[in-house]
Amino acid sequence: MCVFRIDGRACDELRPLAIETDYLTHPLSSVFISCGNTRVLTAASCEEKVPSWMKNQKVPGGWVTCEYGMLPSATSERCRREASAGKQSGRTVEIQRLIGRSLRMAVDLEKLGERTIYLDCDVINADGGTRCASISGAALALAIGCKRLFPVEENPFRELVAAVSVGIIDGTAMLDLCYEEDSRAEVDMNVVMTESGKLVEVQGTAEGAPFSRAKLNELIDLAEYGLKQIFARQREILENIR
Amino acid sequence: MCVFRIDGRACDELRPLAIETDYLTHPLSSVFISCGNTRVLTAASCEEKVPSWMKNQKVPGGWVTCEYGMLPSATSERCRREASAGKQSGRTVEIQRLIGRSLRMAVDLEKLGERTIYLDCDVINADGGTRCASISGAALALAIGCKRLFPVEENPFRELVAAVSVGIIDGTAMLDLCYEEDSRAEVDMNVVMTESGKLVEVQGTAEGAPFSRAKLNELIDLAEYGLKQIFARQREILENIR
Amino acid sequence: MCVFRIDGRACDELRPLAIETDYLTHPLSSVFISCGNTRVLTAASCEEKVPSWMKNQKVPGGWVTCEYGMLPSATSERCRREASAGKQSGRTVEIQRLIGRSLRMAVDLEKLGERTIYLDCDVINADGGTRCASISGAALALAIGCKRLFPVEENPFRELVAAVSVGIIDGTAMLDLCYEEDSRAEVDMNVVMTESGKLVEVQGTAEGAPFSRAKLNELIDLAEYGLKQIFARQREILENIR
Amino acid sequence: MCVFRIDGRACDELRPLAIETDYLTHPLSSVFISCGNTRVLTAASCEEKVPSWMKNQKVPGGWVTCEYGMLPSATSERCRREASAGKQSGRTVEIQRLIGRSLRMAVDLEKLGERTIYLDCDVINADGGTRCASISGAALALAIGCKRLFPVEENPFRELVAAVSVGIIDGTAMLDLCYEEDSRAEVDMNVVMTESGKLVEVQGTAEGAPFSRAKLNELIDLAEYGLKQIFARQREILENIR
Amino acid sequence: MCVFRIDGRACDELRPLAIETDYLTHPLSSVFISCGNTRVLTAASCEEKVPSWMKNQKVPGGWVTCEYGMLPSATSERCRREASAGKQSGRTVEIQRLIGRSLRMAVDLEKLGERTIYLDCDVINADGGTRCASISGAALALAIGCKRLFPVEENPFRELVAAVSVGIIDGTAMLDLCYEEDSRAEVDMNVVMTESGKLVEVQGTAEGAPFSRAKLNELIDLAEYGLKQIFARQREILENIR
Amino acid sequence: MCVFRIDGRACDELRPLAIETDYLTHPLSSVFISCGNTRVLTAASCEEKVPSWMKNQKVPGGWVTCEYGMLPSATSERCRREASAGKQSGRTVEIQRLIGRSLRMAVDLEKLGERTIYLDCDVINADGGTRCASISGAALALAIGCKRLFPVEENPFRELVAAVSVGIIDGTAMLDLCYEEDSRAEVDMNVVMTESGKLVEVQGTAEGAPFSRAKLNELIDLAEYGLKQIFARQREILENIR
Repeated sequence: MCVFRIDGRACDELRPLAIETDYLTHPLSSVFISCGNTRVLTAASCEEKVPSWMKNQKVPGGWVTCEYGMLPSATSERCRREASAGKQSGRTVEIQRLIGRSLRMAVDLEKLGERTIYLDCDVINADGGTRCASISGAALALAIGCKRLFPVEENPFRELVAAVSVGIIDGTAMLDLCYEEDSRAEVDMNVVMTESGKLVEVQGTAEGAPFSRAKLNELIDLAEYGLKQIFARQREILENIR
Repeated sequence: MCVFRIDGRACDELRPLAIETDYLTHPLSSVFISCGNTRVLTAASCEEKVPSWMKNQKVPGGWVTCEYGMLPSATSERCRREASAGKQSGRTVEIQRLIGRSLRMAVDLEKLGERTIYLDCDVINADGGTRCASISGAALALAIGCKRLFPVEENPFRELVAAVSVGIIDGTAMLDLCYEEDSRAEVDMNVVMTESGKLVEVQGTAEGAPFSRAKLNELIDLAEYGLKQIFARQREILENIR
Repeated sequence: MCVFRIDGRACDELRPLAIETDYLTHPLSSVFISCGNTRVLTAASCEEKVPSWMKNQKVPGGWVTCEYGMLPSATSERCRREASAGKQSGRTVEIQRLIGRSLRMAVDLEKLGERTIYLDCDVINADGGTRCASISGAALALAIGCKRLFPVEENPFRELVAAVSVGIIDGTAMLDLCYEEDSRAEVDMNVVMTESGKLVEVQGTAEGAPFSRAKLNELIDLAEYGLKQIFARQREILENIR
Repeated sequence: MCVFRIDGRACDELRPLAIETDYLTHPLSSVFISCGNTRVLTAASCEEKVPSWMKNQKVPGGWVTCEYGMLPSATSERCRREASAGKQSGRTVEIQRLIGRSLRMAVDLEKLGERTIYLDCDVINADGGTRCASISGAALALAIGCKRLFPVEENPFRELVAAVSVGIIDGTAMLDLCYEEDSRAEVDMNVVMTESGKLVEVQGTAEGAPFSRAKLNELIDLAEYGLKQIFARQREILENIR
Repeated sequence: MCVFRIDGRACDELRPLAIETDYLTHPLSSVFISCGNTRVLTAASCEEKVPSWMKNQKVPGGWVTCEYGMLPSATSERCRREASAGKQSGRTVEIQRLIGRSLRMAVDLEKLGERTIYLDCDVINADGGTRCASISGAALALAIGCKRLFPVEENPFRELVAAVSVGIIDGTAMLDLCYEEDSRAEVDMNVVMTESGKLVEVQGTAEGAPFSRAKLNELIDLAEYGLKQIFARQREILENIR
Repeated sequence: MCVFRIDGRACDELRPLAIETDYLTHPLSSVFISCGNTRVLTAASCEEKVPSWMKNQKVPGGWVTCEYGMLPSATSERCRREASAGKQSGRTVEIQRLIGRSLRMAVDLEKLGERTIYLDCDVINADGGTRCASISGAALALAIGCKRLFPVEENPFRELVAAVSVGIIDGTAMLDLCYEEDSRAEVDMNVVMTESGKLVEVQGTAEGAPFSRAKLNELIDLAEYGLKQIFARQREILENIR
């Protein structure tokens, strides 16, 4: 039993998950995902060329890249606008590299052809777990985008991916941390998986004290349990969209 | 009569206007404004200090400042993320200076006390008129924010302001241009007014050919007509919010 | 009557206007313009290629662009050198966009051919109205430059443009404000016109209090009156130059 | 058996490890660590003040921070100098954040007092595993530095940390990958541990295909095996240094 | 005899030298210096504080610093505006460091008191020797500025400095090179001296082929000869100015 | 006699000179040079293309360029990392321009063919004279690199160059200043020569007081004496390397 979560959830309970597709009028596809109060607008845009480094190195196929941002008013204290600061923060850079790597696993880049798909993940409102929500949302936007780009030809999309955060608070493993939980977690872990249950990325970080192998395994079990529910929602939407 | 507007509107007709307040969980106040497909999320945040230049020059009172941004996926072709480009574009800078000037007219800065109010205007979806929607939305966010900051003390908020674009297309004056209209307008004008009908800012630009004094007057008349409707909506919301 | 102007001028009187051409040895043409103590060195340089965005979008014809700067020692308190600060200020960006837009109206870009004309406006000494002096000077430099570039072929230069500032101080409309007047004006307006009397750009800003339609019209009348004198001087020089 | 490693090592064999202390004349302590051809010069410097964000937020104690760099001539193709490029690459930012987090776990920041310890990790020659070598070297530099800073008072240094990379190549788990192995690994993992055997950070990334839970465990076992040998070397040096 | 100089000068002849003082209305002092077609506007501004590094290191006295810039239209091909490029070029940085060092030799910084004097050197028109003209002009601006700042107290200004370029072209030593000469010189040297005939800075650079000690001495002799004439002009102006 | 040098050297004595070649595994050639405690790692890398400005201006042949950097922990007080500061300091820019100019004199650029040789000079430990050590080391790396690039074809390498610092301390001329000497020198001079005894660059700077022609000559004599010893070492290594 787990009476102490600040929002009354059980330790293995996800926050309410809401997904709205095609919220935007311009891009190839867009997914507005809410995990509790964390709301991220993700969008896929396609450009019919590849980055210059691919051209120069003659790498065949296409590319998938990600950019992550946060509205200044998305956080509890207004955060500085990166565009006016003149650079992305280290945190932003680290997050968008993680998202990019994870999403590239979902696609066969060679079959994608000479294209770049941009995945923009913009946090409209933040309450912990923004990088995981970004991955789960952008993966769906990417899947929808590929469906639209390849109605007839072989679709380069391989498999859905999704992500969830898990952590240890006062010695107990918990699923899908909100901001307040995240900021006092002893261990914080982000797990990215494929729909077929394989690991794409595992990033576990001791925040207060190092952790044992047993705890690592407990956390990944918990993440897997939550991710199954997210995959079910992604799958349902993907099947029904044109 | 005006049969030719691409969305079937009359020449003196505003696009559908929708306003949602407190869409965000963290800032002092937020207003999500939609003018047709142009959707801008505006938010007011308050910091209990003033910019260093005010301190150094011993200017009494507080400050109101604005930052404007556009999600990369908000436009018909994905636009480059300014945070990763490392600087704000000239267009962004010009727009946020206009918004800031306009909003400072709505407040008695001296009565505001040693505070800075940040108004963030983030374009979620763009279809022309984003700077005007930003002003109309941010003015309401500012009014609501002041109401909350000064429940008892004298409120430094003076008067609502709002903005609308007008333009001349094929020789005809039209109200509240959408993107496609804007990009083929001969003259493009943004008019910022106070609720009491005075001008705060007038920016008229010949895009294709210079224009006469008569056209200038016709355009401002049209703007005034539209602005009255926007003020009515702002006013209604402001009266009913806590 | 208007006894109170700090330099003894009448309310509808321009500052002494001096124009020197070909002050510089290298560029296509240069115009050193003085409006009272405001002195701006403008120069036109021509490059036989167009910006990459024009190439990519296959826009036919050429381009006219403007850059504005201020010597650090031009202002009453030394201003920071933008080159060492690493970026142009918002004010600079806003001004050079205005100048560029205004000057492009003076030329038929398509007839210009695959060329870019750079108009550099550098403020050597500042006493208010630098953007207007820049426009009036650069328009003449552009006219002279076109005359030299197209001695035989059809000249793409359409019409002279010029600009002047007007404002309201203590309720009275005044022409061609100097710095001290500008900094205490209630309303500040820049009017850009063509020689044939049409409007190119109108930017009116309430600095202290919003203003009425009547005041707007009074200010534009005053600007027109001053601009006629500036056009006479530009015209005379242009006729006599090789 | 494992005949196929390009340098003839067994799958569970570390590269030759060499550690030289106090290579530099100026900083508090320095450790020049070589793991095969990967050579990283790490140094600890102490400043008697804390970052401004700590001051502002009144966080008690001190701070440990890390900067990572690579000489342009350290890599097989010369890499661009970040100082002349004007920014650190995303890869650099991601790495130095990982190192910083890991090293902060080694110290009781509150007991450190109002000090910042900078850990500079500069890659002189690169052949894979530079972030892990940086952590193992910098942890020792930090331990030595603390010993020198706190000869009498209670030493805030808690415990040694070290890192090693592991990966899966052609289905086989291997320890301490060199560059050529790293670039064709299916899974790449960095494991940071404490001397007492607890996890500080686990970062596993699928490079070519997602991986199973079983593989994850096999990799961490292998990392633990290698890390014990690194801890033995660090410990021996630390005991003998003044 | 020396019939071959492109402008008909003798090898040991300076270009026409013109100096205008107080060309600008705002700064403490300004000197507009012309050496042939090279025209540099130099200005001295005084701020009643010292740079933060002086404060932190508790260096007593004041500081003299220099900034150098070139108008984009000053050169034969328009050069890129550094403010819009976002950084000063290496050439600019190198030049302004040379000017700053040279000018600091002219003043007793300790007697200057807690002040910073900024010397802005802006090249209006360039035809070789801009750094030397900057030094000769700025030194005079500094001397005049000090005279004004210290009408009664002991003047911290020590001695005038001036600079001239010399070079070897087709084996012959020449004084005060213009741009065309400079660009085909085998050796290029800038000599900064004090009025009393001592060296402040000598920078000799082989452009095409290394040079002998004999040539070095011949060049410095020639520079000394030219500098005497410049000092005479500076001195005359300085004696007569208030 | 010269009893007062802080390290016991005679006034005309170089610091111990050590040179290690091919310290790095990747670049074309590398030279790790130590002059006392000043240790600089220099490396030559070759790219089979030329800078775009050479292409555009159709300059025939190749290019030699230099980049200089300092590890943050190389100095007595940790210096800020330029990559994280986002720009190279003025000092760095000035130094790398000097090194680049000097090294280009050592090579016949036209015979080099369409290649760029990068010379990276990274200061690992600093104790004065880092720019001179960089030149002496990089010249040797360049010579070795050319020998390897042109085993059969005519070698574009012309002649070795080397550099040494000299200065005046308490009125006495001294060779090869260490940091402590350098920081209290009245005059500081860097002399770059060719093996055949000609001058490549002379940079003499008065730090405390201007200096006479006699002192200038004495300093260059002293530099020549020291440089002969450095050339002997470079020559010996170059003869014996493959």
